[in-house]
Amino acid sequence: MPSATPTPTFVDLRQVSDGWIKKYVLTYRLPDGSSYEYESASRKSPDAYRRELEGNAAGRKPSADAVCIVGQTPDDELLLIREFRYPLNSWCIAFPAGLMEDGEDLATCVDRELREETGYALRADLEAAALDALPQPGFSSTGLTDETVHVVFAQVEKAADAQPEPSEFIEPFLLPINDVPRFLAENATPIGTRAQLVLEAFARRH
Amino acid sequence: MPSATPTPTFVDLRQVSDGWIKKYVLTYRLPDGSSYEYESASRKSPDAYRRELEGNAAGRKPSADAVCIVGQTPDDELLLIREFRYPLNSWCIAFPAGLMEDGEDLATCVDRELREETGYALRADLEAAALDALPQPGFSSTGLTDETVHVVFAQVEKAADAQPEPSEFIEPFLLPINDVPRFLAENATPIGTRAQLVLEAFARRH
Repeated sequence: MPSATPTPTFVDLRQVSDGWIKKYVLTYRLPDGSSYEYESASRKSPDAYRRELEGNAAGRKPSADAVCIVGQTPDDELLLIREFRYPLNSWCIAFPAGLMEDGEDLATCVDRELREETGYALRADLEAAALDALPQPGFSSTGLTDETVHVVFAQVEKAADAQPEPSEFIEPFLLPINDVPRFLAENATPIGTRAQLVLEAFARRH
Repeated sequence: MPSATPTPTFVDLRQVSDGWIKKYVLTYRLPDGSSYEYESASRKSPDAYRRELEGNAAGRKPSADAVCIVGQTPDDELLLIREFRYPLNSWCIAFPAGLMEDGEDLATCVDRELREETGYALRADLEAAALDALPQPGFSSTGLTDETVHVVFAQVEKAADAQPEPSEFIEPFLLPINDVPRFLAENATPIGTRAQLVLEAFARRH
């Protein structure tokens, strides 16, 4: 969005840690001419992150790194998971979610992640209507990372057994929509911010 | 939450990058006896992060690293900001938010961040009723970081001029609640996931 306020100018990025999560130091020139450094964590390679930073400044629409699936069954239940999350050393409540693979479209990624993590799938009888994506992906934590997650609402049905990776510990469970207020009031398990805010929206609407 | 599913056991953490954002490699023992490493980004020191990981496994209630403030004016407007976010090289739509300082309680942090970023403050005429915090903080991105953000709903009023840090570029703006659906449909600026989901909840309720 064009802004009347003077805007910092991206100068360069420097990778300071490699791995699955990469760490970068970004250098900017502030409007007063001074130089300013800021750290960032990203899953992207230096080239891909640089292209993204230049694209964002040019107003290119951000792409989704991952999807988060708010699945609803024909019986008005929400499909949630408890997943062991290594950065927390704890189980955590969330909606099924996962990273998009190269070249994958949203519907393919949603269906794949649902099947892997929960054994559910997009409802076959509804076709396009099974999926309602928010108008744009959202940024998870803009002071820390460039990660974007596209939240999609989906009509789902049981398909088969879940097929998690060996290091993925996931327990799917169904939460009746009418039971969401009680669940939120009583829940003591760590919860992801997207699950929490979507459940709060369901709770306040009923 | 106790779980029937076998759970990985935390063995150790190793810091691989220091700075404002630290990077850790966490070692776990999986239920089959094998060793498993996972990377994580955190603002916490090694000692503080270790205490947190042990506390989470023991079922201790997670504390909030930051607050996110859904401020509403007496005229049924939401108080939002456009902020230049260095990890994105872009302006981004969000609710006012910031890291909690040592020993600070929620209300003090909310009032301070509101004043610094927007020049608004908690409504003085309402006292306790000005603040409605969700029952627990939410985790921003549980595959990547331990960051927790406590979302609070607040009744706010204009108090003074904003006082951002020299490297903070922030433009507060008011969005009438009735105008949220149009805003979401038309917005092309990157948006934080918390702002997006809270705004979607307002949009779907009207």
